[in-house]
Amino acid sequence: MELLKKYILSRGEILEEGIIRVDSFLNHQIDPMLIDALAEEFTRRFAGIKCDRILTVEASGIAPALMTGLKMKVPVVFAKKSRPSTATGPVYAAMVHSFTRQKDYEITVGADYIARGERVIIIDDFLAHGSASAGLIDIARQADAEVTALGIVIEKGFQDGGSKLRNKGYRVESLAVIKSIDGNTIQFI
Amino acid sequence: MELLKKYILSRGEILEEGIIRVDSFLNHQIDPMLIDALAEEFTRRFAGIKCDRILTVEASGIAPALMTGLKMKVPVVFAKKSRPSTATGPVYAAMVHSFTRQKDYEITVGADYIARGERVIIIDDFLAHGSASAGLIDIARQADAEVTALGIVIEKGFQDGGSKLRNKGYRVESLAVIKSIDGNTIQFI
Repeated sequence: MELLKKYILSRGEILEEGIIRVDSFLNHQIDPMLIDALAEEFTRRFAGIKCDRILTVEASGIAPALMTGLKMKVPVVFAKKSRPSTATGPVYAAMVHSFTRQKDYEITVGADYIARGERVIIIDDFLAHGSASAGLIDIARQADAEVTALGIVIEKGFQDGGSKLRNKGYRVESLAVIKSIDGNTIQFI
Repeated sequence: MELLKKYILSRGEILEEGIIRVDSFLNHQIDPMLIDALAEEFTRRFAGIKCDRILTVEASGIAPALMTGLKMKVPVVFAKKSRPSTATGPVYAAMVHSFTRQKDYEITVGADYIARGERVIIIDDFLAHGSASAGLIDIARQADAEVTALGIVIEKGFQDGGSKLRNKGYRVESLAVIKSIDGNTIQFI
């Protein structure tokens, strides 16, 4: 998606080998007009796919998931990174490893908010090693729901998350796929 | 706002004295059509107010803030509840006390994402004792930005956050103000 690539090239910051910071438009400051365009593109790509619900994980997944949910007219659920203080019922839980932060954390979804047999599209801001996506897929599996596709804003094509998911048969739609981050140069696939 | 009150009455869950859980449409599962309507109402109420930026805090503030930012055509920034792993520059920070969780936590905004002299509208999901709002106001003050209004989805009118802010001269627009939660009955102001 050309608009997104332009944002990444002009407003992304390369921090170190393989790490790009997009806090100026996606992960901290959010450009609503960009998110609207991303959601429009997800909606176009997912036009033929059954979807009862969009599943994401807090916090940076919420914006693209919400806007896509609005256009696709389905509810959005974001997995929480801590057990909610006001939980009353059972939850589905999965462990996720953050390579950027070098730590493991648990994500949870209340059992009320994903139902058996539902067709679920997972949306997230980044796909690198695929740990968050694997956690969300595991939660859908626990609920006996079906993951019909994954929508990713930025995929790091030089890490193996995307190929692992595609090799398992998942349809993964990434709006920008970074081939390499080399010095000050970002290349897309 | 009648639509929101209907959601609260029909889909909110009273957990204990003064605590209401709205995980089915706002804090965990999100109803995008409702959020769109909330944002429309915020935009209507803030029509005459200068706004360069919307400020909120992750995670539940993001949805109403984003949708309002889209309609008002301004960028949105969400304060983070942990120091970002990929921070490169200075941040503004404030301590917030959560009465629900009975703990203190720090919120931060990168200094790049709020500028001197900007007019800022703060949007958040709940206003109870006003600790999160006070933290966001403090961050705006550190940046020499001006808070021109606060937009709250659900205000607990029986707690003192709203009156403290209004007594300080802030314009606070709450889309639903709960007067009391008594047994199984919720009353609005």
